[in-house]
Amino acid sequence: MRGFGVFKKGKVGWMEKPDYVCGPDDVICRPVALAPCSSDVHSAMESEGPHLINRILGHEAIGEVIEAGSNIKDFKVGDIVVIPCTTPTWKHPDIQDGTHQDAGGLFTAINFSSYEDGTFADKIKVRSADMNCAHLPKNVTVEQAAMAVDMMTTGFYGSELADVKFGDTVVVYGIGPVGLMAVASAKLRGAGRIIAIGTRPNCVELAKEYGATDILSYRDGDLVEQIMELTNGKGADAAIVAGGGSQALNNAVGSVKFGGGKVAMLEVITGEDKTVLDNAFIASFLAHKEIKGGLCPGGRKRMERLLSLIEFGRIDPAKMITHRFHGLEGIEPAFELMVNKPRDLIKPIVLFD
Amino acid sequence: MRGFGVFKKGKVGWMEKPDYVCGPDDVICRPVALAPCSSDVHSAMESEGPHLINRILGHEAIGEVIEAGSNIKDFKVGDIVVIPCTTPTWKHPDIQDGTHQDAGGLFTAINFSSYEDGTFADKIKVRSADMNCAHLPKNVTVEQAAMAVDMMTTGFYGSELADVKFGDTVVVYGIGPVGLMAVASAKLRGAGRIIAIGTRPNCVELAKEYGATDILSYRDGDLVEQIMELTNGKGADAAIVAGGGSQALNNAVGSVKFGGGKVAMLEVITGEDKTVLDNAFIASFLAHKEIKGGLCPGGRKRMERLLSLIEFGRIDPAKMITHRFHGLEGIEPAFELMVNKPRDLIKPIVLFD
Amino acid sequence: MRGFGVFKKGKVGWMEKPDYVCGPDDVICRPVALAPCSSDVHSAMESEGPHLINRILGHEAIGEVIEAGSNIKDFKVGDIVVIPCTTPTWKHPDIQDGTHQDAGGLFTAINFSSYEDGTFADKIKVRSADMNCAHLPKNVTVEQAAMAVDMMTTGFYGSELADVKFGDTVVVYGIGPVGLMAVASAKLRGAGRIIAIGTRPNCVELAKEYGATDILSYRDGDLVEQIMELTNGKGADAAIVAGGGSQALNNAVGSVKFGGGKVAMLEVITGEDKTVLDNAFIASFLAHKEIKGGLCPGGRKRMERLLSLIEFGRIDPAKMITHRFHGLEGIEPAFELMVNKPRDLIKPIVLFD
Amino acid sequence: MRGFGVFKKGKVGWMEKPDYVCGPDDVICRPVALAPCSSDVHSAMESEGPHLINRILGHEAIGEVIEAGSNIKDFKVGDIVVIPCTTPTWKHPDIQDGTHQDAGGLFTAINFSSYEDGTFADKIKVRSADMNCAHLPKNVTVEQAAMAVDMMTTGFYGSELADVKFGDTVVVYGIGPVGLMAVASAKLRGAGRIIAIGTRPNCVELAKEYGATDILSYRDGDLVEQIMELTNGKGADAAIVAGGGSQALNNAVGSVKFGGGKVAMLEVITGEDKTVLDNAFIASFLAHKEIKGGLCPGGRKRMERLLSLIEFGRIDPAKMITHRFHGLEGIEPAFELMVNKPRDLIKPIVLFD
Repeated sequence: MRGFGVFKKGKVGWMEKPDYVCGPDDVICRPVALAPCSSDVHSAMESEGPHLINRILGHEAIGEVIEAGSNIKDFKVGDIVVIPCTTPTWKHPDIQDGTHQDAGGLFTAINFSSYEDGTFADKIKVRSADMNCAHLPKNVTVEQAAMAVDMMTTGFYGSELADVKFGDTVVVYGIGPVGLMAVASAKLRGAGRIIAIGTRPNCVELAKEYGATDILSYRDGDLVEQIMELTNGKGADAAIVAGGGSQALNNAVGSVKFGGGKVAMLEVITGEDKTVLDNAFIASFLAHKEIKGGLCPGGRKRMERLLSLIEFGRIDPAKMITHRFHGLEGIEPAFELMVNKPRDLIKPIVLFD
Repeated sequence: MRGFGVFKKGKVGWMEKPDYVCGPDDVICRPVALAPCSSDVHSAMESEGPHLINRILGHEAIGEVIEAGSNIKDFKVGDIVVIPCTTPTWKHPDIQDGTHQDAGGLFTAINFSSYEDGTFADKIKVRSADMNCAHLPKNVTVEQAAMAVDMMTTGFYGSELADVKFGDTVVVYGIGPVGLMAVASAKLRGAGRIIAIGTRPNCVELAKEYGATDILSYRDGDLVEQIMELTNGKGADAAIVAGGGSQALNNAVGSVKFGGGKVAMLEVITGEDKTVLDNAFIASFLAHKEIKGGLCPGGRKRMERLLSLIEFGRIDPAKMITHRFHGLEGIEPAFELMVNKPRDLIKPIVLFD
Repeated sequence: MRGFGVFKKGKVGWMEKPDYVCGPDDVICRPVALAPCSSDVHSAMESEGPHLINRILGHEAIGEVIEAGSNIKDFKVGDIVVIPCTTPTWKHPDIQDGTHQDAGGLFTAINFSSYEDGTFADKIKVRSADMNCAHLPKNVTVEQAAMAVDMMTTGFYGSELADVKFGDTVVVYGIGPVGLMAVASAKLRGAGRIIAIGTRPNCVELAKEYGATDILSYRDGDLVEQIMELTNGKGADAAIVAGGGSQALNNAVGSVKFGGGKVAMLEVITGEDKTVLDNAFIASFLAHKEIKGGLCPGGRKRMERLLSLIEFGRIDPAKMITHRFHGLEGIEPAFELMVNKPRDLIKPIVLFD
Repeated sequence: MRGFGVFKKGKVGWMEKPDYVCGPDDVICRPVALAPCSSDVHSAMESEGPHLINRILGHEAIGEVIEAGSNIKDFKVGDIVVIPCTTPTWKHPDIQDGTHQDAGGLFTAINFSSYEDGTFADKIKVRSADMNCAHLPKNVTVEQAAMAVDMMTTGFYGSELADVKFGDTVVVYGIGPVGLMAVASAKLRGAGRIIAIGTRPNCVELAKEYGATDILSYRDGDLVEQIMELTNGKGADAAIVAGGGSQALNNAVGSVKFGGGKVAMLEVITGEDKTVLDNAFIASFLAHKEIKGGLCPGGRKRMERLLSLIEFGRIDPAKMITHRFHGLEGIEPAFELMVNKPRDLIKPIVLFD
């Protein structure tokens, strides 16, 4: 099999690997749609470690089953399957007790392009496929579903972590694809006012379409002050960080109310060994503000729920797709696009016939 | 003062009463909008008890402050205030520990036309006004706000009680005004499929507009069977009962999934001394289905949250208003309409200039 | 292999069966301790159905591994394992979304003596053993652990379902072994006053030892009235039903406070096709009381948590053991004891050397 | 009236003030028992601000009512009342929506010796007395109750914030009086193993009596490593910080498991403008660990719940009292003791006949 991956930190390209052996709980797929993600760039260009040597990249995919393991009950060859970017280790007892993202250790659900090879290849192996894959529903397009496997599950997790309630005022920091989905999720979970922070024109436009009622920019001054002004000095009920790093995290904490304000942290901050919070905002955690963060939920049921939202017309995440590529040869330019991030980019996709 | 009320069971009409004395925490209002409710008919025609002798009816109102008590901080004469149908006893210690609807005893939050006179009068007294009234926001009409004080808070409570989650399949039994708001709330809390049960054409139309994806009728056969067929034998994730009595409650329990199905009960069933549940559905409560019910949440913050949803365009509850009346003299025909329930009625309103 | 089971309704005895084949995720054990349960009597004497024809009974057991499947990671031949009475189907996607007791359908976690043969045999097969078995900790005796696999997990579930909080007043209906564990669990979850309902002297004694502060009997009059008197007319915060059927369920609902009272239903009521609730207590579920019920949680992590409570001295459930038998030949008299329920019986056990 | 307070930062002593005027919702008490707290020392010696000029100190008290406001329903002259250290502003609408500790702004519940004069005086005024005071139960001593008003409500909040579950392993950092109550609360909420961090012999002794199973000291090496060793590299389920500042907070985060570990932060860290967290432990909040902190819950119901635990024998917090003083003249030496913290001090009390 052939895949696009990282040879060592900073050096990417095509690599040949032996074909997958299909275990009893696995399925092997050919790609139907792939999408590169900022995390792929991060894995290839900024991280290192033995798991990132000769590793095929990619974790967003729709596939067609070409082989199904002997234990597989619900999928057969020819089925189009939606593959979540995180495929938790459902066989570990920790799933009985904790967070499936970390069953058996931190981030164990990130299997693709981490513990095993990723999706940027002519073959994709999904472990525990009955527990991880979902069928593509009739009324959902491949493009829509491809936006669910990471962008939607991550962005929607924001409103879940921030426990958005009817009538809440919610701030979303960052309106890249995850932030846009966070905006949409806040609307779909009952937020009233949604304040989105960002500047790129097509993102601003789409943020409004997904439910943002106010757009703020750091260029217009301190964001906490701007939000306090909008909320009569009270602060928002909730904030979701989908970009902007430590500064955004602190702004988020600062912009939610004392006594119940919630902050959802969705962004991986890399290259810093400390998370530093301003005590004017958090008072050493005594201010009754909650910060929750984490990797997106994965697994089959999660996918089915998000696909249901698309199927019944609650959201169209495919509006985020700004660039389309085709076939295996489309992977490299799509990846390059994520590296260069042109101003009109929201999300690229690679389609296969 | 003059009000429309119940003299004794079954006998309604206009009554004169001494003017209210404004306590230190009260405001006195003139009516700006009033709406009759099925509960008013029930109180007047089907219930009895000393609290329903010579009692002014009505609990849905928008008012203009004409007198404010000495402790009132946030409202002044001339303010237009949104008055929740339930005005909890915030001064009782039980609010620290339980459900504000029942602080100090069952249903204590139902003050209007129960412990004190109701809103169908030329004067309306609101107790603990700083805790119970909300300002009418600039972008919200009187008609919209009038639909928030009972219909919206009750219907939206359905999705809260049923803990609707992203992608849930939700069934709503009954599509009168409370059921319609339950449908809207399910959409705004992230439901995927929403199955509404009802037959009246204008209600069906509005249910679809508020988010229903499927409409079922008891005329087409057993509802549980119909829902099981739609959900591949699995059952819905949640159901909300907004009409249909014991039969609807049992259908609701029967139509949600084993192992986590949720039922919200919003309807007061009167005249029955037992609630009877089918063990094929509930297995003496061992089937891991939850039934939660209750009076709608009241108070100022609740109103502010619902008004925020209207203000930021998430919902327009005024679409439910089918009949408009004007002035004090409009109260009686509006009430009669609720008694007779013509087929084209969804919700009447009485407006004051 | 040889086991004690039910041939058909009402007819029990020893049966020979082919030896188990150990699947890759299974372990096969020899019994180290077994305990009969009221449910065994119920399955054998009162229920029927194809799953109760020639079915080996029993679901409480401690075993020694004599064979381990090829996928088993954490257990090896010779290990003493604690086997939960319910062994959920962790491989079903429903565990991602709902209640593990019902993954794939109602009560699927009840595998022993239902979908497969039970534990009253010279061999015991445990499915998904890495997910279901727990190691016996050093400081926990076999007798203590045997009381954890059903009695403790069920009784403790009572306080979890009833969401007992610091300082709660809790009523426990029934002080057989499940009720006694419910009493102990209420104390260990922070209850203040614990009112136990029962009359058998040794159970009363043990209830006090486990934390009951008041003992009431139906012989002294209406239980709801007695509890209202003890609680100044307010009602308890929570009640747990561990015996007494429909009457106890209604008393439980009646004895908890309006506006937040919680009822946990632990008892299987058989032979009734309706669950009937008194509207004076529940008001068609509008009284803001919650009733939650269900089968006990199972699986490895659950066992490990309960064993931790024993290991660190928080509880000694072996105090409930009133009758001891030895070897395979002890199963039948132990079972007979459960059928006859002599007045001094709390819980029998069968021990193997 | 006469009270012991702070004239300005670092200068304490006796001051005369005009007698309180009893508002309609207030009670005025004479002291029955008072206790100084580390926070008093902090307020007097380390903090400053206009609210700490000529301010009577003290927030822990049991009182006897000598005057009751005209609205007071539940208390009369001569009643012994338990006064919580925090008396929330129950009249603010924020209590409907958020955390009562911060209704109307950060820390508004800290009224004593902050917004108004404290308890170290011959008269104590309690605002909203029906909502804040509790009656002293018959079987509870004044000494026990005095330990509930701050030490118990704060320490017990630790197990609530950390959401301790049956069988959890819990670490408590610091075994001064708040930490000791945190230990006791973890036991009463169902913890299995409880690891307490501290060194003072009488505190260690009492920690064991309250439920600690393991005692660790920073003198024996890195605490995270010690805890990882005890828990087989997995980490604890929960940790409570009741002393030790930033270092303890980081150790707490480091010592709980990935994927669900909980940290409760009870300690006010002063004099630092940042809270700094180690990303090896928290991964910028992506590690699925939760940190919750806050001021202790106050109000009448909270007191009643804690007193119920004492009344029914679940805990005796008076064991913490190591030093007793008598009368007004006892306040100053009791306060000095808190300043000097001799090694045998746990908690002093000042008693009045």
